[in-house]
Amino acid sequence: MYKVRVGKKILSENEKYALQNKQLLSESRTLCVNMISSPGSGKTTILCRTINELKNELGIGVIEGDIETDLDCTRIKAVTADAVQINTNGACHLSAAQINNALHKLPAADLDLIFIENVGNLVCPSAFELGENFKIAVLSVPEGDDKPAKYPAIFAKSKVLLINKTDLLGPIDKQQFDIEMVKSHTRKLNKDIRIFPVSAQTGQGMTDWYEWLKDTVKINKQ
Amino acid sequence: MYKVRVGKKILSENEKYALQNKQLLSESRTLCVNMISSPGSGKTTILCRTINELKNELGIGVIEGDIETDLDCTRIKAVTADAVQINTNGACHLSAAQINNALHKLPAADLDLIFIENVGNLVCPSAFELGENFKIAVLSVPEGDDKPAKYPAIFAKSKVLLINKTDLLGPIDKQQFDIEMVKSHTRKLNKDIRIFPVSAQTGQGMTDWYEWLKDTVKINKQ
Repeated sequence: MYKVRVGKKILSENEKYALQNKQLLSESRTLCVNMISSPGSGKTTILCRTINELKNELGIGVIEGDIETDLDCTRIKAVTADAVQINTNGACHLSAAQINNALHKLPAADLDLIFIENVGNLVCPSAFELGENFKIAVLSVPEGDDKPAKYPAIFAKSKVLLINKTDLLGPIDKQQFDIEMVKSHTRKLNKDIRIFPVSAQTGQGMTDWYEWLKDTVKINKQ
Repeated sequence: MYKVRVGKKILSENEKYALQNKQLLSESRTLCVNMISSPGSGKTTILCRTINELKNELGIGVIEGDIETDLDCTRIKAVTADAVQINTNGACHLSAAQINNALHKLPAADLDLIFIENVGNLVCPSAFELGENFKIAVLSVPEGDDKPAKYPAIFAKSKVLLINKTDLLGPIDKQQFDIEMVKSHTRKLNKDIRIFPVSAQTGQGMTDWYEWLKDTVKINKQ
């Protein structure tokens, strides 16, 4: 029996859609960010505050991924009309085909920035490319400082880490959450990652994140 | 073409091992509990405190599931020698085959109670039977009160819900976490579920949980 080597990688269904999405977003120079975290780390609150702050400067859309309900999309629609809900009906991550469908429902070509809020899950979504420019991991203070060691994939693959709920760094003491340890563990996995400690509740630390995001949108337009 | 109906359900590989585990545990009348939650909800802290409190009355073992590291198992081994670590190396849930292997490493026949601490993931582990007597869901206050609505499967399938980190009900106000709403949403999905609000950090509310657990072990022995 002869083995025939095929020089070209055969793309999975998900990879095909991811590539289509990437081309679509690249044509309109729309920056697309895939946000991944545990349930309840504050992704929706971060998005609402960020959109409210930047909506006069940037056209921002959101693709909301949830297993069930449109609770998050309702919160997002209070700050931007350009929001699409995807319900996965049990599935633990968004697929590139679902994003492709959502992109066609948004005025993608007119938007500067699209956030994808993935299903709350620190594990599975990190394995599926959606055609985004990059991933952002969110870790909230009450989840504990051992998460980069225990769930390394998403910390290794993200361009940005938002450490959220820093307003709880009083009630939750350093023994439970040592922010310097989180930074150093994360940088061991990913030396170039940008880390922003923020509180989307109080606004603390958010300005640096806004500035970085505006610069990154600007670079993507060039 | 004729369709042949097969009256007997064909068991998956996972179901076969789950059944083996169930038989093994049933022979020694060892109660086995599968704990499922988001990362950082406090499963390990709940286990350490519970074992410390009950170890003079009950023989308790733990099967620790983590994607990477043995950080949790090290914490558990400080309170019981009967602990086995499983690393899933990327997989998002424990399988019944892994539990079967771990049960053979524990003195299962001499134990009254075995806790399985599943991988931190509110979605995938709920779909895999491990041969346990029942599941326990853990939801911590900082994760927000919308989780039973957004991730219904695990709340619908569990016998017990532990609402952990109630010590944060001061800094996190009722607008963000309405405990009565969590209870009523969960009971809509699962009318018979037992709900214990606890703080594994301070010990608040843990006594009711200990008493219920001791009674349940006793019933399982009969």
